[in-house]
Amino acid sequence: MASRIYNFNPGPAALPLPVLEAAVEGFIDFKGSGMSVAEVSHRSALFEDVLNDAVTRTKRMLKLPDDFMVLFLQGGASLQFAMIPMNLIPPGTSADYINTGTWSTKAIKEAEILKKPHTVIASSKDRDFKYIPKDFSITPHAAYLHITSNNTIKGTQWQSFPEAGSVPLVSDMSSDIMSRVFDPKPFGLIYAGAQKNLGPAGVTLVIIRPDMLERVPDDIPTMLRYTTHSEKNSLYNTPPCVAIYLVQLVLKWLEETVGGVEAAERMNREKAGLLYKTIDQTGFYQGTADVDSRSLMNVTFRLPSEDLEKKFVAEAQKQGMGGLKGHRSVGGCRASLYNAVTLDAVRTLVSFMGDFEKKNG
Amino acid sequence: MASRIYNFNPGPAALPLPVLEAAVEGFIDFKGSGMSVAEVSHRSALFEDVLNDAVTRTKRMLKLPDDFMVLFLQGGASLQFAMIPMNLIPPGTSADYINTGTWSTKAIKEAEILKKPHTVIASSKDRDFKYIPKDFSITPHAAYLHITSNNTIKGTQWQSFPEAGSVPLVSDMSSDIMSRVFDPKPFGLIYAGAQKNLGPAGVTLVIIRPDMLERVPDDIPTMLRYTTHSEKNSLYNTPPCVAIYLVQLVLKWLEETVGGVEAAERMNREKAGLLYKTIDQTGFYQGTADVDSRSLMNVTFRLPSEDLEKKFVAEAQKQGMGGLKGHRSVGGCRASLYNAVTLDAVRTLVSFMGDFEKKNG
Repeated sequence: MASRIYNFNPGPAALPLPVLEAAVEGFIDFKGSGMSVAEVSHRSALFEDVLNDAVTRTKRMLKLPDDFMVLFLQGGASLQFAMIPMNLIPPGTSADYINTGTWSTKAIKEAEILKKPHTVIASSKDRDFKYIPKDFSITPHAAYLHITSNNTIKGTQWQSFPEAGSVPLVSDMSSDIMSRVFDPKPFGLIYAGAQKNLGPAGVTLVIIRPDMLERVPDDIPTMLRYTTHSEKNSLYNTPPCVAIYLVQLVLKWLEETVGGVEAAERMNREKAGLLYKTIDQTGFYQGTADVDSRSLMNVTFRLPSEDLEKKFVAEAQKQGMGGLKGHRSVGGCRASLYNAVTLDAVRTLVSFMGDFEKKNG
Repeated sequence: MASRIYNFNPGPAALPLPVLEAAVEGFIDFKGSGMSVAEVSHRSALFEDVLNDAVTRTKRMLKLPDDFMVLFLQGGASLQFAMIPMNLIPPGTSADYINTGTWSTKAIKEAEILKKPHTVIASSKDRDFKYIPKDFSITPHAAYLHITSNNTIKGTQWQSFPEAGSVPLVSDMSSDIMSRVFDPKPFGLIYAGAQKNLGPAGVTLVIIRPDMLERVPDDIPTMLRYTTHSEKNSLYNTPPCVAIYLVQLVLKWLEETVGGVEAAERMNREKAGLLYKTIDQTGFYQGTADVDSRSLMNVTFRLPSEDLEKKFVAEAQKQGMGGLKGHRSVGGCRASLYNAVTLDAVRTLVSFMGDFEKKNG
């Protein structure tokens, strides 16, 4: 085995080693087919088994009602930002958005570009997106309420989801899907780029409640209609087969090795708890998010100076810990603790942080 | 090594074995990073090298003028069917289309859905798309002329491209990009889903001439504007990194092992020549495309009965040749001969065809 670093990348991010090893097997001869998984037809039984297993495991682990559709699409969350208002704001209605950072802002921007009626009912921009808003009124009969469940850049996360009554929730869960238990029933649509908790970049999980499909208009391009993909079980056109294969392996690992989302959540709380405890111990490390809005997935913190931050990231890298630099738009440091990041990795990081503080504090 | 079949799949299709073997190396430890290629940041120098190498090799092998942009996008040719009319038909102009089969029909359909002015100036629908039209008049000052350079389902291919004067050509080259030499200068835009000649499914090559970018309107979603991707070198959002990595390895193989597009074309002509010769030898096999419109990439043929076709496909499979069934919409048989299909594979097929005819003819 080649030596592996502890990978705290924000996405693309760490994948479980057993998944990578299993993937390699299918990469030359996929299930005795004499072909690579990259070479088999997407309409073969071999590939449909992969796709259907990924769908079934997603439904089972998230406890989705049977009639929810699970789709694997292309274009990332960024394309969903546009598809959602195109598909889910029927004429005469308007959607609500809550702005909690870069990704919400981008989602709102696409509704604007499309000239789709929408209201930003709350925002944490006043304090640089360091918190999740608590006071807001949802517009009665809004087409949906859009939220970003976890904010990778600012390190905040909805601790529980808003009570929206009959207004369907729509959430970008790119960075925390499958990391914690939640009730899916209030959600009209959930979307997640795979490259954090689900697999490699290049595929986007979309979960859609059947009543949402009734809103889809006919006058938008075929590939941008949710109905196109739901009617064809994600096989309207050639899907990103290799990426879906990796997602299926990650889901299998999550269910069979980790023990599902409940077990993942316990581990994620332990990992984040350890790191936040270290940050809070002295004044050397400063968490950037409000304590009551802290993310379990992306722990953002500052050091006393930018020079020390650079030194911190560089020394950590030397000691086999990668991906600790904050997002280029905000600086600082960030440790992303997705499902595939082990407790061992976090213990190593925490121990390094203690040493670093002693030497530089 | 596991035993490999001769893979005549129409797409996803055969990949070169050395590429799969090289890919596997990067799958656990990518260039000594201690991470899989699926785990490295898309903004790391490691990944940018992959992307830039893929761009450079594409430009070099297709002899693209320096200012042409090479992009790697998501959504397949199917999303391009919509993006092209959204981006490249400015108000007051209209585009020309030539209909040569299923894929052209789908491309035209998206212009219709978008209510973008367009004219179908020629079609081979009258004879079930068995030929490439020769007589047509391009509308003066058309926004573009859209063609499908190779038609995977009906087995036809433009032998040379239309002379369109100042009207930019736009072509779906999903199934024959990099398979033959052509002059790129008359093309305003070329697009190709990777899963035939370039790599796995999940990434789409888009080549765009800079004057086309000036047409892109501001009022379409960010992800659907070509300028978004050209300004960010395909890194506006997280790209399909693993798929791009495989494309880069295929391009490297094509350039360094095969000897570039000229060498690939020679081999493709030899492969297709061998197969068409076998088909034409007796009346047992019947080519479905007009002789002067035959594709070098997808050789479509019928046997005297559907029962014999089923038997042919099944026996070929038993003898290690896969993917010979015709498209589900047309039936019959089809052998796809993309760059990664070896001469040896075709010789084996031709020999099998001789034997099969003797036994069943």
